[in-house]
Amino acid sequence: MSSAAFIAGDWGTSRLRLYLCDASGHVLARGEGEGASVPDCAGRFSAAVASWDKAHGMLPAVLGGMVGSTIGWREVPYLTCPARPQAIAGAALRFEAEGRAIAILPGLSCTGVTGAPDVMRGEETQILGALRLQRRLARGRHIFCMPGTHAKWVVVEDGAVTLFQTALSGELFELLRRHSVLARDGGEVDAQSPAFALGLAVARRNPNADLLHLLFSTRSRVVTGEMAKADAASYLSGLVLGKDIGTALSLFEIKSPVQLICTPSLAALYARALSAYDLNSAVIDGDSAALAGLVHAHAEIFS
Amino acid sequence: MSSAAFIAGDWGTSRLRLYLCDASGHVLARGEGEGASVPDCAGRFSAAVASWDKAHGMLPAVLGGMVGSTIGWREVPYLTCPARPQAIAGAALRFEAEGRAIAILPGLSCTGVTGAPDVMRGEETQILGALRLQRRLARGRHIFCMPGTHAKWVVVEDGAVTLFQTALSGELFELLRRHSVLARDGGEVDAQSPAFALGLAVARRNPNADLLHLLFSTRSRVVTGEMAKADAASYLSGLVLGKDIGTALSLFEIKSPVQLICTPSLAALYARALSAYDLNSAVIDGDSAALAGLVHAHAEIFS
Repeated sequence: MSSAAFIAGDWGTSRLRLYLCDASGHVLARGEGEGASVPDCAGRFSAAVASWDKAHGMLPAVLGGMVGSTIGWREVPYLTCPARPQAIAGAALRFEAEGRAIAILPGLSCTGVTGAPDVMRGEETQILGALRLQRRLARGRHIFCMPGTHAKWVVVEDGAVTLFQTALSGELFELLRRHSVLARDGGEVDAQSPAFALGLAVARRNPNADLLHLLFSTRSRVVTGEMAKADAASYLSGLVLGKDIGTALSLFEIKSPVQLICTPSLAALYARALSAYDLNSAVIDGDSAALAGLVHAHAEIFS
Repeated sequence: MSSAAFIAGDWGTSRLRLYLCDASGHVLARGEGEGASVPDCAGRFSAAVASWDKAHGMLPAVLGGMVGSTIGWREVPYLTCPARPQAIAGAALRFEAEGRAIAILPGLSCTGVTGAPDVMRGEETQILGALRLQRRLARGRHIFCMPGTHAKWVVVEDGAVTLFQTALSGELFELLRRHSVLARDGGEVDAQSPAFALGLAVARRNPNADLLHLLFSTRSRVVTGEMAKADAASYLSGLVLGKDIGTALSLFEIKSPVQLICTPSLAALYARALSAYDLNSAVIDGDSAALAGLVHAHAEIFS
């Protein structure tokens, strides 16, 4: 373990993933902790890496995600798009904490295609990583889709993030499933189910109908006996993902394959949904991408 | 009070409004009670009208709304559109309860313009009433907009309900305001505010962007300092109402004025939102419309 060189931290709103890495970025050990929205990031970080400090001394740390927001440890201003990997690493906020060198990566901002400002924190680190994991993506134009609470559709051109768009897909689906009349006791989401396919088809067939006017069909299909209650969550998920993808298609020029960066379970859902829109997808694991991005940033910042 | 002739009950999911009426439908007294989703509608109805029974005997009762759903007193099957007023009254479920003649009005169902089934319960009673309150609406083609938890857009042709579409506008807005990251501490909705107007403008400018892709701008505008946190609820409301109206415009042929049936506060919001889409509106009070509908139904059923 004497080869340990730095600590990487993927620190989102709800969780912290810590990696003890050697100089080449290979993972020697892992840790976990609470998200950046819990108070006292500084104290919690020290506690989380105390055993590594004892064994290896105060290693430098590279952190990315909501840890750099107003609710996190230290606020790092957004970097404006277009943003190249070097610029993202270069805009990291560097400071010392208890004698340790820390770098927190910035988020990105842009003016979206809708005319409104848009922001991300954490996804830029995953994009950095994806471009390192798959070097061919650093040339040409690629569309990344990063499903989750706030899904991001990202245009990367010759390695630079030029434009992105946030969809509230994950958060909206969870809100509707938990709190609305639509899908109470509505079963689990099954990407292979006819109900999921029906939701996708209804979304695709109705490009002029906002989700607002499609959602209630989740309930009316159950009330009229046309759909089993246990299929409601799958149908609802199909509607939401269909509208997510359909809007992305109308806002951006999207060519297959779409690069999915997320968990395996979300990748399965989105791959199925994209195929309903005649789009292929390739999958990059979200945790691996974040780690690769932090390793890349460490090399840029501390070398 | 000896002229009392019947009881009218507007019985929705969350509240019961009771009216003691004379033979012409004039209100002699009012009462209130819990919604149809609370168990034992039969027992609660008896208790609520006990004093009227003592004074006037067991008067017949006409009830409308969720009281006729599976969660209510007795289920009344949906009547399929197109539905004329006489047919709605004619499809009432009539029964005796403790010696009292009761009639519960049916809801309506249709196949919506999106291809999915759609249903309403209670709004059909308000439409019946609106057509009685404003006789000119019984001729020609009119668009009714009934804002609320589940907003209904209704096409009435020569007095018959031919088609309708439900939008989840009210429920979605409340869910997002209460539970999402978008508008916590986001102030009160102000229909006269620039933030409400901006939300409407963004929705109108982006016909190809689903609400899913516009919602996050509520947060990004605050995070980037472009909008005050206290304006978030107004902006969010503008987005939701804008998409509600924009979709209705693309699904139906809508000519001014749109007939709004709702509370005065919702009427103010929707009138402002409709004007942003160059549509005029006329307002019919929701409670008055429900009462007029029940009075009309009583005349049809018990005369």
